[in-house]
Amino acid sequence: MWAMGENRLDPCILVIFGATGDLARRKLFPALYNLYLEGRLPERFGVVGIGRRLASEAAFRDEVCRAVKEFSRKVKIGVCGDFLESFYYQQFDLGEAAGFLRLKEFLANMDRIRETRGNRIFYLAVAPEHFGPIVDQLAASRMVAEGGGWLRIAIEKPFGHDLASARELNQRLARVFAEEEIYRIDHYLGKEMIQNLMVIRFANSLFEPLWNNRHIDNIQISINESQGVGTRGRYYEQAGALRDMFPNHLMQLVALVAMEPPVDLRTKSIRDEKVKVIRALQGLTQDAVARDVVRGQYTGGNVDGEAVRGYREEEGVSASSRTETFVAMRLFINNFRWAGVPFYLRTGKRMPERSAAVVIQFRALPGTLYFKEFGALEPNLLVLKIQPEEGVFLQFNAKELGPGGRIVPVKMNYCQNCDYPEDSPEAYERLFFDLIRGDQSIFPRWDEIEQTWAFVQPVLDAWTAAREATGEGEVALPIYPAGTWGPREACDLLEREGRNWWLVL
Amino acid sequence: MWAMGENRLDPCILVIFGATGDLARRKLFPALYNLYLEGRLPERFGVVGIGRRLASEAAFRDEVCRAVKEFSRKVKIGVCGDFLESFYYQQFDLGEAAGFLRLKEFLANMDRIRETRGNRIFYLAVAPEHFGPIVDQLAASRMVAEGGGWLRIAIEKPFGHDLASARELNQRLARVFAEEEIYRIDHYLGKEMIQNLMVIRFANSLFEPLWNNRHIDNIQISINESQGVGTRGRYYEQAGALRDMFPNHLMQLVALVAMEPPVDLRTKSIRDEKVKVIRALQGLTQDAVARDVVRGQYTGGNVDGEAVRGYREEEGVSASSRTETFVAMRLFINNFRWAGVPFYLRTGKRMPERSAAVVIQFRALPGTLYFKEFGALEPNLLVLKIQPEEGVFLQFNAKELGPGGRIVPVKMNYCQNCDYPEDSPEAYERLFFDLIRGDQSIFPRWDEIEQTWAFVQPVLDAWTAAREATGEGEVALPIYPAGTWGPREACDLLEREGRNWWLVL
Repeated sequence: MWAMGENRLDPCILVIFGATGDLARRKLFPALYNLYLEGRLPERFGVVGIGRRLASEAAFRDEVCRAVKEFSRKVKIGVCGDFLESFYYQQFDLGEAAGFLRLKEFLANMDRIRETRGNRIFYLAVAPEHFGPIVDQLAASRMVAEGGGWLRIAIEKPFGHDLASARELNQRLARVFAEEEIYRIDHYLGKEMIQNLMVIRFANSLFEPLWNNRHIDNIQISINESQGVGTRGRYYEQAGALRDMFPNHLMQLVALVAMEPPVDLRTKSIRDEKVKVIRALQGLTQDAVARDVVRGQYTGGNVDGEAVRGYREEEGVSASSRTETFVAMRLFINNFRWAGVPFYLRTGKRMPERSAAVVIQFRALPGTLYFKEFGALEPNLLVLKIQPEEGVFLQFNAKELGPGGRIVPVKMNYCQNCDYPEDSPEAYERLFFDLIRGDQSIFPRWDEIEQTWAFVQPVLDAWTAAREATGEGEVALPIYPAGTWGPREACDLLEREGRNWWLVL
Repeated sequence: MWAMGENRLDPCILVIFGATGDLARRKLFPALYNLYLEGRLPERFGVVGIGRRLASEAAFRDEVCRAVKEFSRKVKIGVCGDFLESFYYQQFDLGEAAGFLRLKEFLANMDRIRETRGNRIFYLAVAPEHFGPIVDQLAASRMVAEGGGWLRIAIEKPFGHDLASARELNQRLARVFAEEEIYRIDHYLGKEMIQNLMVIRFANSLFEPLWNNRHIDNIQISINESQGVGTRGRYYEQAGALRDMFPNHLMQLVALVAMEPPVDLRTKSIRDEKVKVIRALQGLTQDAVARDVVRGQYTGGNVDGEAVRGYREEEGVSASSRTETFVAMRLFINNFRWAGVPFYLRTGKRMPERSAAVVIQFRALPGTLYFKEFGALEPNLLVLKIQPEEGVFLQFNAKELGPGGRIVPVKMNYCQNCDYPEDSPEAYERLFFDLIRGDQSIFPRWDEIEQTWAFVQPVLDAWTAAREATGEGEVALPIYPAGTWGPREACDLLEREGRNWWLVL
């Protein structure tokens, strides 16, 4: 197959369930293509797509190639070339046991032809209700037991829709796969700047001494989306912003920002530290939920100068929907490093821009010296920009040019994708690369997932309890016009403490 | 005169001795012109140039205008306009007592016409041997006693050529002027980024906690000149790089970088802290001079692709000159904040570039984590760029783009004069502005000068003693080709301790 040079990746077959779906087309195939261009796939490797929609391998390959052309960050002349030769297709319905048996035979045959030694990655790019059944079928067909090589299963979030269902799903997975075989995809963890977080914290002597409650006033983590729910209305109605973003991306970011330095860089050591942070989160009482969690739902408005409809007018959404499309939360980490430092998290759809960032706000200066002459100065901010720009900047105070001598905030900036945006890999490239080489570091372990659900569960409970106790209208669900930064209450959350959300520009 | 708006500067007359000299032409007139453009001169104001070369006021004004056109960072259409109307000229020899009497009368007359109330600034832009005689004449003519307004005298360095002569000069000044009337010009202190040093240190909460021997490994301060001695050979032969740069620019930079936060921003408070740093410098024994001070002299070479001659071939320089054109020094500050942190200072002529910068090198990381996997990482550097670029950058380690995951040093950069270099004021603008408004903060007090000479004196002594004891050849004066970073020994100074000079790019 494709040339590789010195790469020592095990041969394997990647089986993608949901290969004719949107995720595969937009993210998975382009990511595989870029790994291919960079020689980061195993020498002996094959992809088997499973789907219902397409009838033939030719049609599938054609679709893979079109996906690459449309969505790949880089497209080479000749584009698909021998890249397509490793793509195979099996059409069957996921409920159909015979399909799995055919697949098993097909893979065994591929092993012989491509010398892939029974190594398998099962990638579940399907709706969550299929996770359990597919895993059961993999077991029933004895595909798992009889492969002869190593096995890995990759599942996309959501990992359950609450703590109980997450546990249930995990038990079902665990009956068939060992924890070391389970790769839970949180695609945020594949993003360049999120991987950079640990490096920036622990490969520099400058930041660690400041990274605690003696020097940091508060930390803000935002994931803003400018899009609405699009075609995912039906799913989103059942999920909402909290389930969609908190027990995964946002809590993972909290863990990476707040974790203690691990003993070493092994997967276990890193995960151990992450889970410690999540376990140290101050539990949310019902009062805390009322005080520290704000939700919202967008109404019609303008995003990027374009009029867009409100959430309740979206396809698949109830006209009286009580689903939140925005959540802001204040939380605390009860350990020596972070006691007293509020973490403010925010995520929403139909925000004014698509962006994600971590803002570290340092403590105010003593009220002396320049403070006395110039009044309050802006605080120092260290900002990690996750997307669309990837980089870091430090906002600090300096003298304005000239003899006037006013003090103004200025920025030291580092941008890693400004000059050549196409050089910055997509998250799924890293995820596939680690999945294939068997490095679980950027895939959350079960206890991380369980603890994040345990943290979020009281919010779900409080919202449900309030709804049941007092009628739907009594759970505060303030609206916000599309194209704004969420409801007023999200600002109050900080302003009541003399703080504010920082716009990261 | 020129329009001023709301400015409340006292009316005054600026008397420039040496008004037909090079400094006046290149620096003083252009600086006054820019203050004029920005409305930063008093409403009632006059400049009286004193010189020998020119015969008439018309010729003087003509020269002022030509100087502005040639050297001002900004030149307006119509250029000189009514700016020139405040310029007057008096031709006399500085030895001539009658000249001073004529000047006295002239100024008294100006006071009547321009309502300048007897306020006077005497600016001595002349060779240092004239300082004493001019001051004596100012006293003898009773110009000082009988002005009726406030008086200020500004003198350009060198303030003496060793500790004894500096004291002598100061005594001579002090007989006529009070310390509050004496403005010692160290033009480096007028530079934008040097004024910014205190602001950056004390108007940010981020830097102060790191600014000590627990976090800083060493500090490097370089002032590099690409030029040779030019037409100043005769002066330079008597001075050398040590006298020319250390008891002023370099020691002032050390003081600003290392000082404790002052009680407030008053002149006295700032000067008190600066002088404390200089007093805390670890005294240089003869051994320390031999070990920690490196001098050098340039030979012919190439700078900017142009062949240039060696120091001994320069005009006014002895063919067997033993004058140093380069000095590197290691010093320590014996106080709680800095004990054990080496400060490396370096200055030289005919370096590869003209530049000045302060490099703060932070301590190495513990040898764990990324260190273990990637070997030694580059240290964190905070670099204050003084000239020609003005700004700050922070070098830190980040993950290289892509799944390879190498760790590389990257830079967060802030440049304040990159986009519009002409917006950045020249040092002399600030110096004049403060001189006119009577703010002494950026002018060194006598005890600062005295203490810096006291620190440097042992080096002068050791060099002299060695020369006298063992013959000229025995004092090490390594050569370096023009266009290089000084002699090998300057690198050894750091390399013997496992350190290196950082190139600031």
